[in-house]
Amino acid sequence: MTFGHDLAQAMSHYGPLSVGVDPSREELSSWGMPDTPEGVMAYSMSILEAAANHVAAVKFQVAFFERHGARGFAVLEHCLDWCAGNNVLSIADAKRGDIGSTMNGYAEAFLMPGSPLEADAVTLSPYLGFESLRPAMDLAHEHRKGIFVLCLTSNPEGASVQHATHGQGVSVARAIAEAATAENASADGMGSVGLVIGATVGEALRDLHIDVSALRGPILAPGIGAQGATAQDAAEVFGEASSWVLAHQGRSLSSAGPIVEKLRSAMVVAAHELRTELQAS
Amino acid sequence: MTFGHDLAQAMSHYGPLSVGVDPSREELSSWGMPDTPEGVMAYSMSILEAAANHVAAVKFQVAFFERHGARGFAVLEHCLDWCAGNNVLSIADAKRGDIGSTMNGYAEAFLMPGSPLEADAVTLSPYLGFESLRPAMDLAHEHRKGIFVLCLTSNPEGASVQHATHGQGVSVARAIAEAATAENASADGMGSVGLVIGATVGEALRDLHIDVSALRGPILAPGIGAQGATAQDAAEVFGEASSWVLAHQGRSLSSAGPIVEKLRSAMVVAAHELRTELQAS
Repeated sequence: MTFGHDLAQAMSHYGPLSVGVDPSREELSSWGMPDTPEGVMAYSMSILEAAANHVAAVKFQVAFFERHGARGFAVLEHCLDWCAGNNVLSIADAKRGDIGSTMNGYAEAFLMPGSPLEADAVTLSPYLGFESLRPAMDLAHEHRKGIFVLCLTSNPEGASVQHATHGQGVSVARAIAEAATAENASADGMGSVGLVIGATVGEALRDLHIDVSALRGPILAPGIGAQGATAQDAAEVFGEASSWVLAHQGRSLSSAGPIVEKLRSAMVVAAHELRTELQAS
Repeated sequence: MTFGHDLAQAMSHYGPLSVGVDPSREELSSWGMPDTPEGVMAYSMSILEAAANHVAAVKFQVAFFERHGARGFAVLEHCLDWCAGNNVLSIADAKRGDIGSTMNGYAEAFLMPGSPLEADAVTLSPYLGFESLRPAMDLAHEHRKGIFVLCLTSNPEGASVQHATHGQGVSVARAIAEAATAENASADGMGSVGLVIGATVGEALRDLHIDVSALRGPILAPGIGAQGATAQDAAEVFGEASSWVLAHQGRSLSSAGPIVEKLRSAMVVAAHELRTELQAS
């Protein structure tokens, strides 16, 4: 089974929700937990216990583990291992990107079976070109893992790179989307090469003539909940591609914590609403 | 003192050479060392012992530590701490990039005094826009650290993003260079906001009308040595901006190892040649 297949099944079963594991200083503080590796562990495990068997995937914001150096990474290792042992699909949101042997190093770090930081999928950043990510795509294909490539984001400054165009008027974001689409061409069902596209990009997908309905891969879409978009807004943004959307929520769910049962209720409600708005359309 | 000031002094004193600490599987194998955290430690410390007090800076390729998870990061922590204690300027080549609190998390990981992974400078990737890196620029300014932002690279696929243009015909790479230049405007001497520009980009700087002579910040330039460019080639690429160039070499130096004295000789020769070609022009 591939990552795309497993994720499609999980999205169909639980609803298309990815839950954030984002132990920032602010999040730890809001839960009354210390800004230490121990606090990061307690925070993360509460999220995971709430999410397991109730949502499609969890996404770890790697920066918040990296802040604590090796001890923070030891916590991340524990969490990723826990996910693997509890059938929770894990996405390492690392936004790594480099070339050649270095890109291969990042790919091995997050996608190689047996690596301490092995996850089911990793997010990648394509400033060095989509093709520079090839070592990660090869490794993902070989070991049935997934990748999500940054495509189009809703932060205002993102346009300065993502909306820039080439001679024919094709934007950077559109070229990334088309390259990912080509990677999934031979996939049976949902492919394993996904994109990151903000749920709050508004008209930008249409303005840039990006047709993600052809992607045949998952669209990791942050922005619903705390950032102001509703599931219905996301359905409008993605249109026919809505059924490929894995909506990501962080703070709007963690604010229900730290009690695991309350967290879980918030996740179940959000997943149900997302299924209604995105999968039905 | 700022990072820019310290780096300028070191470049002037030792010659404008940055030495790579790149313990990839291939590098470890070529030195007969195991692909384990212990091998990574032995490899890295040999490079550092050779480089200390003989080159301007060392650059750690973070991916090769991340491959080993928390134990790899413990080695990186040790190496960065060793650099701080031995007056070796350290650059964490992490190419991180994100937005908001996550970007702040990465900035804190590498630039916050007292952080386990504290370095003197970090490399950043601007796919989310130059301004998305603001938390790192703020932290660098506050704590007198440095950043190097990916601008123009020589891998063929890099052009698909970096050469794309906005309405006025300004390329992504040029906009990044101009934004970095603006950040250094008030710097006394060399500023602390640098760029990463390949020494083998050929005519691309001219073709894209990028004037890095105005940068007033360091240009981290890989590509000399193993990738085929000579110091003289780099001087031609960078022209008037050559005195801002911190040339980076990895394999072309490590191939002289693992004996520390031989490594050091190779570094001293390279630094001398770079000084002659780049600083004099």
